[in-house]
Amino acid sequence: MSLAETVEQTDAATDVAAVMLAIGRRARAASAALALASGDAKDRALRAAAAAIRADAERILAANAEDVSAARAKGQRESLVDRLVLDPKRLEGIAAGLEAIAGLPDPVGTVLAEWTRPNGLRIARKRVPLGVIGIIYESRPNVTVDAGGLCLKAGNAAILRGGSESFHSSRALVEAMHKGLRAAGLTEDAIQLVPTRDRAAVGELLRMAEYVDVIVPRGGRSLIERVQNESRVPVFAHLDGVCHVYVDAGADPDKAEAIAVNAKMRRTSVCGAAETLLVDRAVAAGLLPRIAAALAEAGCALRGDAEARALVPAMDEATEADWSTEYLDAVIAVAVVDGVGGAVAHINRWGSHHTDSIVTEDPAAAERFLNEVDSAIVLHNASTQFADGGEFGMGAEIGISTGRMHARGPVGAEQLTSFKYVVRGDGQTRP
Amino acid sequence: MSLAETVEQTDAATDVAAVMLAIGRRARAASAALALASGDAKDRALRAAAAAIRADAERILAANAEDVSAARAKGQRESLVDRLVLDPKRLEGIAAGLEAIAGLPDPVGTVLAEWTRPNGLRIARKRVPLGVIGIIYESRPNVTVDAGGLCLKAGNAAILRGGSESFHSSRALVEAMHKGLRAAGLTEDAIQLVPTRDRAAVGELLRMAEYVDVIVPRGGRSLIERVQNESRVPVFAHLDGVCHVYVDAGADPDKAEAIAVNAKMRRTSVCGAAETLLVDRAVAAGLLPRIAAALAEAGCALRGDAEARALVPAMDEATEADWSTEYLDAVIAVAVVDGVGGAVAHINRWGSHHTDSIVTEDPAAAERFLNEVDSAIVLHNASTQFADGGEFGMGAEIGISTGRMHARGPVGAEQLTSFKYVVRGDGQTRP
Repeated sequence: MSLAETVEQTDAATDVAAVMLAIGRRARAASAALALASGDAKDRALRAAAAAIRADAERILAANAEDVSAARAKGQRESLVDRLVLDPKRLEGIAAGLEAIAGLPDPVGTVLAEWTRPNGLRIARKRVPLGVIGIIYESRPNVTVDAGGLCLKAGNAAILRGGSESFHSSRALVEAMHKGLRAAGLTEDAIQLVPTRDRAAVGELLRMAEYVDVIVPRGGRSLIERVQNESRVPVFAHLDGVCHVYVDAGADPDKAEAIAVNAKMRRTSVCGAAETLLVDRAVAAGLLPRIAAALAEAGCALRGDAEARALVPAMDEATEADWSTEYLDAVIAVAVVDGVGGAVAHINRWGSHHTDSIVTEDPAAAERFLNEVDSAIVLHNASTQFADGGEFGMGAEIGISTGRMHARGPVGAEQLTSFKYVVRGDGQTRP
Repeated sequence: MSLAETVEQTDAATDVAAVMLAIGRRARAASAALALASGDAKDRALRAAAAAIRADAERILAANAEDVSAARAKGQRESLVDRLVLDPKRLEGIAAGLEAIAGLPDPVGTVLAEWTRPNGLRIARKRVPLGVIGIIYESRPNVTVDAGGLCLKAGNAAILRGGSESFHSSRALVEAMHKGLRAAGLTEDAIQLVPTRDRAAVGELLRMAEYVDVIVPRGGRSLIERVQNESRVPVFAHLDGVCHVYVDAGADPDKAEAIAVNAKMRRTSVCGAAETLLVDRAVAAGLLPRIAAALAEAGCALRGDAEARALVPAMDEATEADWSTEYLDAVIAVAVVDGVGGAVAHINRWGSHHTDSIVTEDPAAAERFLNEVDSAIVLHNASTQFADGGEFGMGAEIGISTGRMHARGPVGAEQLTSFKYVVRGDGQTRP
């Protein structure tokens, strides 16, 4: 049955549970085949998919135009429409992203550790694919390709559930991915798009623990929250990115200013953007006015606690809610704290365990901060905006996790794998 | 409030939800402190706890005698009573186990990977504790100490929920653990025993995703099943250990016989015991009668498929249910399969992804089996009974996981950790 036929049938029958079950079964079967696929075959599929995206550009952009005009007709906000729009340049970026993934080393088969027991048994811990990854996303059609490609790289089957706004775009992109899979002799079931816009499909996906090994939600807070609350399948996600820059007594003032401004203002809409500035009481009088002025000049609104406002009266007043708010906007909360201990206490209490940075030339303060702040990423003298798989050298990421199980921080191809123990003997029996 | 007072209050008030919430909060706070405890302090606590168990032996054995006589009075099966009984030798084994854990390397703080980016950022992936581990177990009181000790070693807080049959024994053992923690200046909340026998406590524990990072159930199939079905917290467990020995055409007959008999009969009650023997059709006529005779002589009952019974008519008939049954008894299912491909297909279809072994001198057959069997542990020319953290050199294990997330196979101290990214810069901002 073609994808289009499946869609029609689904819309007719609306037996979402049956459709999802069939998708889950096909994904599980595909994952068994993909686990044995060579790195070469997977990379050929990724490169052929990139070529198919370029060759099909006209068809993909036409499908996208359909989504965009439907979104505009529905009166969607322009910021949402912007996330939805594809143009030749964005499409080329998507294709090039697949080639970059193809160029990464194959994580599958890597020996993570190896040792020999006194009885002669040789034990190796070897990477294997995780299995089936469910990706639930909203309006960005590029996730179809980025996430599908990264799952394939690590030998996993992907079930993609895109937002209804990007339905036609995602479908056109998945067709190109299927061409790539076919060209490499791999099963098209490696990357399946949920062929219905029925929202019940998400609920089904979240309950299919037998067929899905992990769910990666990509989108706004309400989506992540729903997935985390409802899912019976483990989830890689971060609900919030309440990231901090702490300016320590030992800070170099130039670095402090540059890092604070970059961490907040380089892009305010990313999860690694700083939301709170903490300044050591010992240097607040000298440094805070300067950093506040630089932030204000860059267009940032400031909300301070009483001590901060005493030093910079132009600041608005921060309420308790500000300490745990992810503005994703040109706003920053500012608090004066009692040294590195105060900073650690504030961050562990109010932060979201995502990404936090200390600015200091004092190695002892830096070590304490890096050790005691309980976040996926802790930085010393660097901007929180480096919280990104690409910046970490992972080549690509499927998201950033603030959970502690399996994956934490940027989730790249390696984090989409599991492992097995391979034990080689010569007839050993256990006494 | 003392533990005894808490118990009484709880039994009086039966506000299980409030009790569990308080335990969860204390555990979360303790885990933050433990994450910063030195390896030396944790090891001192473990050794002091071992000493306290030896010093308190009389009190612990008296508490255990209370449990044992209550179990007998309730008419519990002797096999269950045997799991419950402590004697001086078993108690010494428990104390020595703690000392062995103290002797293991501290997993926390280990740098798992380290690299430098072109912009000069130095990135390290560093082990940190997982957080709070909930252990739900049945009648074996030693789990109190083994699991509590292993959690402590990896810097985690433990919430122990022992079976009601072992309530007094577990309480006495936890008191000894608390002496160890106090001696090392660590918080007693590092190891908490749920102070109520109310079964609702288990349900509460399984829902406390905010305070508990992972649940480890230890016990029979019905416990594991309940935990896997109900838990909102990730679970490390195996529901079944349907392990296979596959005798390939290239098998050395002596090794095949020795491994099959050992894998099945060394101890039939362990999860790594073989439950199914698969024999390659090419050598079944020559080898199966010999292996079957050796198994029968060792006291094992055999249930074969039609081909196996044609070669060994004394076998009972296997039904389809036998292929997925964990007998945990002196019974083995026997099937004739079509080479290594047939063995892989049978195991991946009917097995439980736990532990499977191939006996062969043919390296190509061995590699295919090790690669294609999708189990936590795959062995070549070795008994499945090696499926054990101690035998793997991990020193101790909290259980064996057939899941693919985070931990797989024997779960030792290393698998009870997470990691964080530590990034060191010199003022870098992101362009």
